[in-house]
Amino acid sequence: MAKLILVVFALALSLASVPAFADGVPAPLQQAGLNLMPWPAHVQLHEGRLALTQQFDIAVTGHPGPRVHDAATRLLQHLQRRSGIAFSQHAVTASPGDKQAQLVINVRRPGVLKIGEDESYSLHIDSRQAVLTAEDGLGVLHGLQTFQQLLQSDPTGYYLPAIDIRDKPRFQWRGLMIDVARHFQPVDVIERNLRGMAAVKMNVLHLHLSDNQGFRIESKVFPELTEQGSDGQYYTQDQIKQIIQYADERGIIVVPEFDLPAHAVSFFVSHPELASAPGPYHLYTRFGGKNPAFDPSNPETYVFLGRFFKEMAGLFPAPYIHIGGDENPGTQWNNNPVIQAYMQPSITSNEALQTQFIQKLAAMITADGKQIIGWDEILQPGLEKSAIIQSWRGKDSLYQAAREGHRTILSNGYYIDLLYPTSDNYLNDPIPPGTHLKRSVRRNILGGEAEMWSELVRPGTIDSRIWPTTAAIAERLWSPQDVRDVAWMYKRLYLVNLQLEDLGLTQIRNQGALLRQLAGQHEIEPLQMLVDVISPVRGYQRMATGNYTTHSPLASIVDAATANPWAAIRFNEWVDRFVDHPDADTEQKIRLQLEGWIANDPALEALIDRSPDLHSVKPLAQSLVTLSKIGLQALDYLDRKQAAPRAWARGTTTDFLQARESAAETKLRMVDGIEQLVVMALKGERSSGSGVTRGEEKNGG
Amino acid sequence: MAKLILVVFALALSLASVPAFADGVPAPLQQAGLNLMPWPAHVQLHEGRLALTQQFDIAVTGHPGPRVHDAATRLLQHLQRRSGIAFSQHAVTASPGDKQAQLVINVRRPGVLKIGEDESYSLHIDSRQAVLTAEDGLGVLHGLQTFQQLLQSDPTGYYLPAIDIRDKPRFQWRGLMIDVARHFQPVDVIERNLRGMAAVKMNVLHLHLSDNQGFRIESKVFPELTEQGSDGQYYTQDQIKQIIQYADERGIIVVPEFDLPAHAVSFFVSHPELASAPGPYHLYTRFGGKNPAFDPSNPETYVFLGRFFKEMAGLFPAPYIHIGGDENPGTQWNNNPVIQAYMQPSITSNEALQTQFIQKLAAMITADGKQIIGWDEILQPGLEKSAIIQSWRGKDSLYQAAREGHRTILSNGYYIDLLYPTSDNYLNDPIPPGTHLKRSVRRNILGGEAEMWSELVRPGTIDSRIWPTTAAIAERLWSPQDVRDVAWMYKRLYLVNLQLEDLGLTQIRNQGALLRQLAGQHEIEPLQMLVDVISPVRGYQRMATGNYTTHSPLASIVDAATANPWAAIRFNEWVDRFVDHPDADTEQKIRLQLEGWIANDPALEALIDRSPDLHSVKPLAQSLVTLSKIGLQALDYLDRKQAAPRAWARGTTTDFLQARESAAETKLRMVDGIEQLVVMALKGERSSGSGVTRGEEKNGG
Repeated sequence: MAKLILVVFALALSLASVPAFADGVPAPLQQAGLNLMPWPAHVQLHEGRLALTQQFDIAVTGHPGPRVHDAATRLLQHLQRRSGIAFSQHAVTASPGDKQAQLVINVRRPGVLKIGEDESYSLHIDSRQAVLTAEDGLGVLHGLQTFQQLLQSDPTGYYLPAIDIRDKPRFQWRGLMIDVARHFQPVDVIERNLRGMAAVKMNVLHLHLSDNQGFRIESKVFPELTEQGSDGQYYTQDQIKQIIQYADERGIIVVPEFDLPAHAVSFFVSHPELASAPGPYHLYTRFGGKNPAFDPSNPETYVFLGRFFKEMAGLFPAPYIHIGGDENPGTQWNNNPVIQAYMQPSITSNEALQTQFIQKLAAMITADGKQIIGWDEILQPGLEKSAIIQSWRGKDSLYQAAREGHRTILSNGYYIDLLYPTSDNYLNDPIPPGTHLKRSVRRNILGGEAEMWSELVRPGTIDSRIWPTTAAIAERLWSPQDVRDVAWMYKRLYLVNLQLEDLGLTQIRNQGALLRQLAGQHEIEPLQMLVDVISPVRGYQRMATGNYTTHSPLASIVDAATANPWAAIRFNEWVDRFVDHPDADTEQKIRLQLEGWIANDPALEALIDRSPDLHSVKPLAQSLVTLSKIGLQALDYLDRKQAAPRAWARGTTTDFLQARESAAETKLRMVDGIEQLVVMALKGERSSGSGVTRGEEKNGG
Repeated sequence: MAKLILVVFALALSLASVPAFADGVPAPLQQAGLNLMPWPAHVQLHEGRLALTQQFDIAVTGHPGPRVHDAATRLLQHLQRRSGIAFSQHAVTASPGDKQAQLVINVRRPGVLKIGEDESYSLHIDSRQAVLTAEDGLGVLHGLQTFQQLLQSDPTGYYLPAIDIRDKPRFQWRGLMIDVARHFQPVDVIERNLRGMAAVKMNVLHLHLSDNQGFRIESKVFPELTEQGSDGQYYTQDQIKQIIQYADERGIIVVPEFDLPAHAVSFFVSHPELASAPGPYHLYTRFGGKNPAFDPSNPETYVFLGRFFKEMAGLFPAPYIHIGGDENPGTQWNNNPVIQAYMQPSITSNEALQTQFIQKLAAMITADGKQIIGWDEILQPGLEKSAIIQSWRGKDSLYQAAREGHRTILSNGYYIDLLYPTSDNYLNDPIPPGTHLKRSVRRNILGGEAEMWSELVRPGTIDSRIWPTTAAIAERLWSPQDVRDVAWMYKRLYLVNLQLEDLGLTQIRNQGALLRQLAGQHEIEPLQMLVDVISPVRGYQRMATGNYTTHSPLASIVDAATANPWAAIRFNEWVDRFVDHPDADTEQKIRLQLEGWIANDPALEALIDRSPDLHSVKPLAQSLVTLSKIGLQALDYLDRKQAAPRAWARGTTTDFLQARESAAETKLRMVDGIEQLVVMALKGERSSGSGVTRGEEKNGG
């Protein structure tokens, strides 16, 4: 019995010790155990350490501004909570600090919260002192996050390694979009996600505030927008100011989006006269479907939107207003004779009509002192150059817009709601290696945004879709292009996930809570072992069932599963390594894991049988144990140094086919690893390069 | 290996199957698996069940009011989330419902949110329909909570048992006090605790809004109170209105407390002129210490308090204002010549002076339309009879006040911050069996309140002090007096704890999050096994160290430990049962648990050695394995049917002494069970009644 506990424990630590061979970062640095994410531009590690003691204190010199003091005070609190050490200093204030302090912050000016501000910093730590230097307060904020991530411990206590870091972002725009229209997300959800964003040096929170399912911000000019166009869940203006303030303190810009001319049902519930077909309109409880649009031929549309955007421009200090512009099918326009008459003779297509509509909006919004952002459909001839294009459809439109002189933001490939593997998001580079773009074009590519569409999340599950994947996206947007080793990323992500949890994010703890509900008991270890090897079906497969509405409970096993099934990720990595370098140590880990899955099965199946909610996952449990046995057989053949019989291998086909079937809208994710073992056994040799391509990729999620 | 997993799993289920012999409830009912808490006044279980299906719907007849519709809609959402079944009905509205609905609610009037309102209800469920009948909306709310708790599942699906329940509370005042002064608790903490309170039929939230460490509510008349008298953390008036509204929707009254004349430093930071000694005053960061008091001789004191209470009386709709009145040492009064002169000749003691002060306050507050509540020190000759006495010092003062014609509330024995075993709180009856009180006196005892003082909690840990213990207190205050079987209470509490978690309470999930931080890794099973047998030192031992301030991180192992170490509770129960009825099945459970603790030790100690935060718990880990081995030896002697040698038993003394020492401000809680096994082995017989009294009780925590 003792053995199993030790084994589980030993396996758990293994992900943190994956050897890796990064593209751009020297292997010794990778193995130094620094849990930095995003990885800084330049890192030089030295011998020695700065021990964290009761004497730890922070002083600031230069012209910092309140953001720096608040952030330094938060660092003090964090280090105390993390280490359990009580410092004598409780807050960092504007009074001149002692230059002998253990952390000295030098900053020349407070800085302005805007895209393109200097965000660089340098950090020097030796055994005596740490010095953080930055041009402005935004750089200091990033440097303090790096300092916090550098905290380590060993049996002697907490410390920071002696190190020199020079750092700055690769891209200026590192955003997270949260769709609060489909499922509203209360202020505390937003605030904890802002803490997570700041921890990984992101600087734009984009709020998708209106859509067919709800209008989510109070208008004092048109209070009917939320009164009739929401279920009562929306941000009051006081609350949105609180969010903006909270974000500002953390160096994050809040960009509001009001999706127009389509995706606008929540406007039309109270203002059917502005739509292109007569009402009445009701909030959608389903997703997709018809997409009514504003009537661009109606002068009242512009009167209304002019007043509305003027109010919103006053509420949000950021210089941007996102006006959506996506997915207008034009159906209502085609069928409205008044609009058809309005178009004749000069407006020859719906695209041209939409462009005229956007241009009129842009003129009003520009007059309010803001620039517009829109999804890539707004890129049409005649669009003014100050408009920023957010590309959700692909890099072609990203580059096209940049070539045409627009600033651009990449969203395509960062749709975290689709739950593709984090590695996919991580390797999605706005400007991949080898891309040929003129410098002037390249400069127009501001960065990217992780997109959290909320059809299938509620406040209790949204963090588990955003984190830790978004930390990997943040690294893609901040770190040098050649930092792209997937195994090393996962190694750090696994620990960064704990750092994020410490900020109050719920991606780990709420999984346990949901599993306890599904199991109907406190003890969930057998179920946890299954959840650690499954992830939700990818892309739009879940939405395609058509079963989901805004009322769906979203409390099934698929809502507990995540894009990062750690045990499966770790297992597949072991097998990859074993295929390349078949050694006894790795084989032992693989065997123990397979035996662990088999050993878990009776308890897991007993639990499944007792809980009606869990019946649908039974095929997964059965496939897990079946494939684990196949994996052990493959290793046995390899150990006997004989090629496995083809008939045996052929006999596993049905089992693999079954194991790749989804159940309960989830899939097993350790199947590839086991298939590789079978292929290896079939060859009968421990040689490198099995040549198996990833089955899951072939099957598309 | 499979064996251990199955064993852990089997052990986990055992608490839910403890046979119990309750004082007042027939054993068959107890064994029916109903997880009701508080247990209703009358329960009659029938054959049959109402299956929960997609067709489930709710209709309301009579005159319900909005509270009923909102609560019924919440029930719909809860049942959907819990079962994963999507109903066609999404909300319960005022439109007349179908009397054939699966749940029909009959209610005569909306009811008034006040102490003494009719809170009774009856619930009938058969295989066709459920009918909930109540005089008013408050009774409906309670009945809906019972309905929700009745939801059960088996492999065939979700259902409610056929049942008849008639229910009403034993006491009118079933409160929870949260001290938001020492450590501020944001709105979302309060809201989730209100959900928990409603789930266990509590009806008063008492907010301790001011104390020496902070002033926590915005005054528009005296904004300096929070500007200078807080660290910036307080409720705005909008926020407190939101809390009051949220509570009202759940049938809960919000009673504000402003502690006077002492505990008032946060008033004096901005108003030193009102104190009995010159300032300046600064907020306390420590606890205890000197307790400055308002100057009762200064007319300005009453002008200020008059205006202040008038504002607060307008803000809080409840007819009560709690004015504290506790722990005034009188030191400042004794040393202030002006006050001494003021007292001559008629006021002969500080008690009399305080009474005069309270009387003046009471007159003003009564004029504002409110009744005063105070801690038991305010009970002095001359106190007006409408004042309600909250007894924190004991039942003597409770009964004395009641005899003198005051309404009273019991707090003594319900100080959940002191982390005594839940069974202690549970058995603390405001009017224990056999108490002789006149009916008129008895009627003055309104009920009781769980008291959550917040010196040693932060928002991330407070739920783990309040829950699930407060559910047991709620049962004491609601259920018939003879419902007092401890083992049966724990059996239900263990499952009610999961019901509470489903409301968003964090008492379980945040423990895991903190353990992950302490361990610095995701895998915490070895540490969890230790935490499941320890609880914090009890009473004021932790505060007595003097190490704690408002800045303390409160993120150590003691902050993760709780008053309910389930594995220890379960183990001690097994041993109790084994001593009374030594059977092979129970012995096997005890053995497996002891072997499990021993098997866990290497992984646990490895984890402790790696984490500087955890070094201090090493003695506990070592004692756990030492005592587990002793326990197995005792069972071996019993199995051999020979009395254990006295020398062997004597040799264990040092180990028991060591095991009862605290470490990291926590103690092992399975020591009594193991000592009982040794005593049993020493007698050499499996006979009933070992006569061992609880060592932990003797040692006092």
